[in-house]
Amino acid sequence: MTKADRIVSGGTVLLLDEKETVIRDGAVAIMGDRIAAVGKKAEIEAGYASGEIIDAKGGLIMPGLINGHTHAAMTCFRGIADDLPLMDWLNNYIFPAEAKNVNPELAYWGSLLACAEMIKSGTTTFCDMYIFEEETARAAKQAGMRCLVGEVLFDFPSPNCKSPEEGLAYTKKLIEKWAGDPLVNIVVEPHALYTCSPSLLKSAKSLARSYDVPCAVHLLENRAEEAQLREKFGKKASHFLHDIGYLDEKLIAFHCVCLDDEDIRLFRDHGCKVVHNPESNMKLASGVAPVVEMLAGGLAVGLGTDGCASNNNLDLLQEMDTAAKLHKVTRLDPTVMPAETVIRMATSAGARVLGMEKTVGCLKPGMKADIIIIALDKPHLTPMYNEYSHIVYAAGGADVSAVLINGRLVMHDRKLLTIDEDEVMKKTREIAVRIWSSLRKGKH
Amino acid sequence: MTKADRIVSGGTVLLLDEKETVIRDGAVAIMGDRIAAVGKKAEIEAGYASGEIIDAKGGLIMPGLINGHTHAAMTCFRGIADDLPLMDWLNNYIFPAEAKNVNPELAYWGSLLACAEMIKSGTTTFCDMYIFEEETARAAKQAGMRCLVGEVLFDFPSPNCKSPEEGLAYTKKLIEKWAGDPLVNIVVEPHALYTCSPSLLKSAKSLARSYDVPCAVHLLENRAEEAQLREKFGKKASHFLHDIGYLDEKLIAFHCVCLDDEDIRLFRDHGCKVVHNPESNMKLASGVAPVVEMLAGGLAVGLGTDGCASNNNLDLLQEMDTAAKLHKVTRLDPTVMPAETVIRMATSAGARVLGMEKTVGCLKPGMKADIIIIALDKPHLTPMYNEYSHIVYAAGGADVSAVLINGRLVMHDRKLLTIDEDEVMKKTREIAVRIWSSLRKGKH
Repeated sequence: MTKADRIVSGGTVLLLDEKETVIRDGAVAIMGDRIAAVGKKAEIEAGYASGEIIDAKGGLIMPGLINGHTHAAMTCFRGIADDLPLMDWLNNYIFPAEAKNVNPELAYWGSLLACAEMIKSGTTTFCDMYIFEEETARAAKQAGMRCLVGEVLFDFPSPNCKSPEEGLAYTKKLIEKWAGDPLVNIVVEPHALYTCSPSLLKSAKSLARSYDVPCAVHLLENRAEEAQLREKFGKKASHFLHDIGYLDEKLIAFHCVCLDDEDIRLFRDHGCKVVHNPESNMKLASGVAPVVEMLAGGLAVGLGTDGCASNNNLDLLQEMDTAAKLHKVTRLDPTVMPAETVIRMATSAGARVLGMEKTVGCLKPGMKADIIIIALDKPHLTPMYNEYSHIVYAAGGADVSAVLINGRLVMHDRKLLTIDEDEVMKKTREIAVRIWSSLRKGKH
Repeated sequence: MTKADRIVSGGTVLLLDEKETVIRDGAVAIMGDRIAAVGKKAEIEAGYASGEIIDAKGGLIMPGLINGHTHAAMTCFRGIADDLPLMDWLNNYIFPAEAKNVNPELAYWGSLLACAEMIKSGTTTFCDMYIFEEETARAAKQAGMRCLVGEVLFDFPSPNCKSPEEGLAYTKKLIEKWAGDPLVNIVVEPHALYTCSPSLLKSAKSLARSYDVPCAVHLLENRAEEAQLREKFGKKASHFLHDIGYLDEKLIAFHCVCLDDEDIRLFRDHGCKVVHNPESNMKLASGVAPVVEMLAGGLAVGLGTDGCASNNNLDLLQEMDTAAKLHKVTRLDPTVMPAETVIRMATSAGARVLGMEKTVGCLKPGMKADIIIIALDKPHLTPMYNEYSHIVYAAGGADVSAVLINGRLVMHDRKLLTIDEDEVMKKTREIAVRIWSSLRKGKH
């Protein structure tokens, strides 16, 4: 009998593999940071001896969720301003609040709060763009979360970097420091085409290429940006990106609300990746990304929550529900974006988008053990005819009962094992008092 | 010192009164089934002695939510079929499943399961349309929930009533039986204009008038219905309703996706009420109701989840989030449907829609004590700048910690006090096995 470190046992296992395998009364054996075997509970328990059994009886066992785009530390600005015209929201609330308050302390505690929230709603990997990302990496490491993080780069100074050069140098240091880390991965992240000069964009891509890491950018989030970029470049944004050598398999583009059919073909031909953020796009009134067309065109599309100032939570289960429904009503077709498709976006396809498809996103032997359990023994999840349907249309983040990342149990019975929840809430509440006071001062 | 039966004490109280009063460190004193006083904790505790203190420290205290349209017993069909073309979904799943399985047992246990789910997500009042509504009334009474329930009426036989006459007689019995009940109210409910003859519609309205109860109907849920009705009547549905004397303050119309500006004026002039069901409209790809125009036009609009076959849960907090975001993206305007507006739809405006504005929907002395507490001490609700924003954009049903209806505590620390949760889940799971087997048999 082989020795496993732990066995997640007794629930229905959704593998999210190519065959959409579902194993009822199943189990997953874990050795170290990896999945050793997936199968029927009886078989796994006959083949593996384990010191630790994690009981998933009556629950769903599935791959951890992948949040393809967020700004973790912005939990500190959750709900600070809503329902405002975009420019009022940005110029009178978000930008001044950030300029006056973002420092390493906010970045660390805000990111740790985001990790707490993400783990508690089933997310095991997140892709982040913000300021002082060394702190976000530290927080993720503390939380035991997998991540792909990058310092935001733009032409103007940030609270962390006085110039684009400093931003690039900071990013390079991040890449070198975290190289080979089992959880923390680095991405080069120019903010957007309207905030970065072509020269900065090219330097960023060149940095990413030299270390073979992904390069990610906000792209075509709304019509105003589309018009602005066409005016700025005298051509379509996708043509500009093509001309400066951006289109490749390592490009991750966030939002892409205004991608047209030709852009989708161009992205497909070059293997570019997209992250869809439906709730943020709805709340900021950005528009509806053509995700149905992207998927039909063969693009890899992941799912993200965006930051807490524009959502205002990091619950990917809720985001899946919204994604499935939004495209149905937009196209007046109830068959588009079925449950399986949106679950893929938050698991296996999401992993492909981040270049992690050989690591996470499905439950197969050899993959890293990033696993969540969803408890089904609740009125709103009763009865159950179809697991996929329940995950997307009935469950919410609060239904996640246990989370393993890289083979390690980070939440059990909804209790976080790597984060002091009370401490992180206390710290971020103190930071919020300072933020609110800084905004009020600015108004006098 | 006056004696109160109980005091909900120590949280931030949102009154949802005309002045949008918010009382920090507040309390609500309850005598019998009514609110005796709302104020600062110190004042209330100085003025009222109470045997029972319900501690809401660090939480939000607000009026219970009002689900303006659902089919409670359809919890038994939750997730039985999704992502299908409408006619396939209806004709091959929902209708056969209902025809073969709906009986008083399913209606009772399915409704009780819905009550469990609704209480656990903060709903204290629901408006229901289904079959065997005596059982739904019984379940609501058992759960201690406030409701407005009506037997569905149409031209063809239902599992309960062989003819429209039987349906009307059954409704009349319901009205007489439940007259004067503190929780259960009855509504006359012709299903829709495409399933009811003009004669049945007129008899239904006449019955409602003779007992002075509301009359409610599905209306203009999608474009196909709009076209069908125009063809059937040779005029707009709203004109037809006007001509047969339907338009008055007691009319509650569900969905109204295809209401145009003239319809909205006509509805406003006659005081008709509307219930908006955004998630169902999205999932079934029905379209986006012109709620922004309805509100601008002065209509009273409530919020509903619709049944569990088309949502697939009864979580009004999630429904508020979706409502706020859907209209923003549809109109490409982030200022429409602000948080306060959608909270109104689920509380004070929702009460007006159901004719209960003198009873529930806001926290004022003299109103019935339907009160919920939302626990805020959680990562995804931290920090907090604005209570309204958190309710709509960050909270979910699972954040509701306690619920009082008609002065009675029906949930405390998330434990249901009126329903045996395990029993209702066991019963509905047994019913679901029979439903699934009946569908599989039908396919051979």
